[in-house]
Amino acid sequence: MRREITGFSNPTVKALRALREKKHRKAARQFLAEGLRLLTDALECGHVPQMLVMSSARDPHPLLDTLEAAVLAAGGEVIETTPDILSKITGKDNPQAVAGVFAEFDTAIERLDRHAAPIWLVAQALRDPGNLGTMLRTGDAVGAGGLILIDDCADPFSVEAVRASMGAVFTQAIAQASWDEFLPWLRSGPGQLVAASLRDAVPYRGAPYTAPCFLLVGNESRGLPGEYEAACDLRVTMPMRGRADSLNAAVAAAVLAYEVLASLEA
Amino acid sequence: MRREITGFSNPTVKALRALREKKHRKAARQFLAEGLRLLTDALECGHVPQMLVMSSARDPHPLLDTLEAAVLAAGGEVIETTPDILSKITGKDNPQAVAGVFAEFDTAIERLDRHAAPIWLVAQALRDPGNLGTMLRTGDAVGAGGLILIDDCADPFSVEAVRASMGAVFTQAIAQASWDEFLPWLRSGPGQLVAASLRDAVPYRGAPYTAPCFLLVGNESRGLPGEYEAACDLRVTMPMRGRADSLNAAVAAAVLAYEVLASLEA
Repeated sequence: MRREITGFSNPTVKALRALREKKHRKAARQFLAEGLRLLTDALECGHVPQMLVMSSARDPHPLLDTLEAAVLAAGGEVIETTPDILSKITGKDNPQAVAGVFAEFDTAIERLDRHAAPIWLVAQALRDPGNLGTMLRTGDAVGAGGLILIDDCADPFSVEAVRASMGAVFTQAIAQASWDEFLPWLRSGPGQLVAASLRDAVPYRGAPYTAPCFLLVGNESRGLPGEYEAACDLRVTMPMRGRADSLNAAVAAAVLAYEVLASLEA
Repeated sequence: MRREITGFSNPTVKALRALREKKHRKAARQFLAEGLRLLTDALECGHVPQMLVMSSARDPHPLLDTLEAAVLAAGGEVIETTPDILSKITGKDNPQAVAGVFAEFDTAIERLDRHAAPIWLVAQALRDPGNLGTMLRTGDAVGAGGLILIDDCADPFSVEAVRASMGAVFTQAIAQASWDEFLPWLRSGPGQLVAASLRDAVPYRGAPYTAPCFLLVGNESRGLPGEYEAACDLRVTMPMRGRADSLNAAVAAAVLAYEVLASLEA
């Protein structure tokens, strides 16, 4: 179905704007993603938006036509609106010409196939959606299978996380679990749990990584709880040559993930 | 001098709040940093705040006493205010108990001593203050000398950049220059310019890095201009196993910097 919306007070506009808030996303079981490239990535990974919102000021593009056709073929809606309204919806001053509304994915950990990839990223109580999105993006780059979110993490379907993921939210599997759900799942099959740690750790370079390798990083300010570190098969440490005693969580995950990638491929 | 401020409309509160905006920072030649740990790092690196703003709800702490004494000894001001006003000043819902106002540093590139460190980070047109702060933090971790900002970058003295740097804004040298200023400066002495690149590049692992090594990363969306890449002594590429063709800029800098660190120390 196609519609044109020109009023800020239109109920669809209100519902779309509300997707910027977690409680509304959870109620609607939907999330928002912006940009032609990102939506094209999504489509190529099999994710068709339920609704496509296009700016009346867009330039024509064959990929946009493809998107539109896919949405209509799947029974979704295509909405044309003003750049101002699109800006209100996405919360961005210079909005992309197109945004899509997607059904949230099932993030049950039982759905993960650990044999699908040699590397998995695991974040514990990660609070910053930008860090979370960046970890998804890094996971895509190193050929990881996905990101497992332990305990109370930022929402991977927030606009900020989706944006920072640069499309990897559609290519990486995402699971959410408590530590008490995660650990039994992990131990029910093969898998090496590796923590970036300062305690009782070996140098991260040349450490004995084995696939499937699960790389665990902790909360931005508190790091990993001691008992979580203790449950790991391997604790590795990165050089810290300056005054600081830790790296940004997404940076630590990336440095470690690239080391594991090199090690497993050697 | 000591003062107590209880009113939101106090001119000092207005001036401090204004430091969240770049034009006011540049006019005042000052910037704001928050948190006891960060301010203590600053002090230990020889940076005494011109003004210390403390919450009336703070817990006593010997490091806070040390800070207060240092500010008063240097002829600065110590201000006590309410948590609400401190929150307004820093723009944070749960403000730290203390914030400091610092004189902006001189960021002329001529002041850098390239022999002071084996690694230097260089960012071109980096637009995200969080990425910039994260690069400073990574620089501290790998023992870099500092961060050189080329062309139109985010402001390293913004609240977001200072916060993301976790204190490294005080430990890392910061320089700002146009490309046309940077390149002659670089070529006036020893220094290998290395670009993270997709074109005409060798694998980043095992590449022939030499100190002082200048690691150049480009703008978040456009990457490096071709002529900048061409001017580099070495172009290296990182594996991209997924759909994406680039990493987050701060992540790329970190993966590369840790590789260079390992290479130079081997």
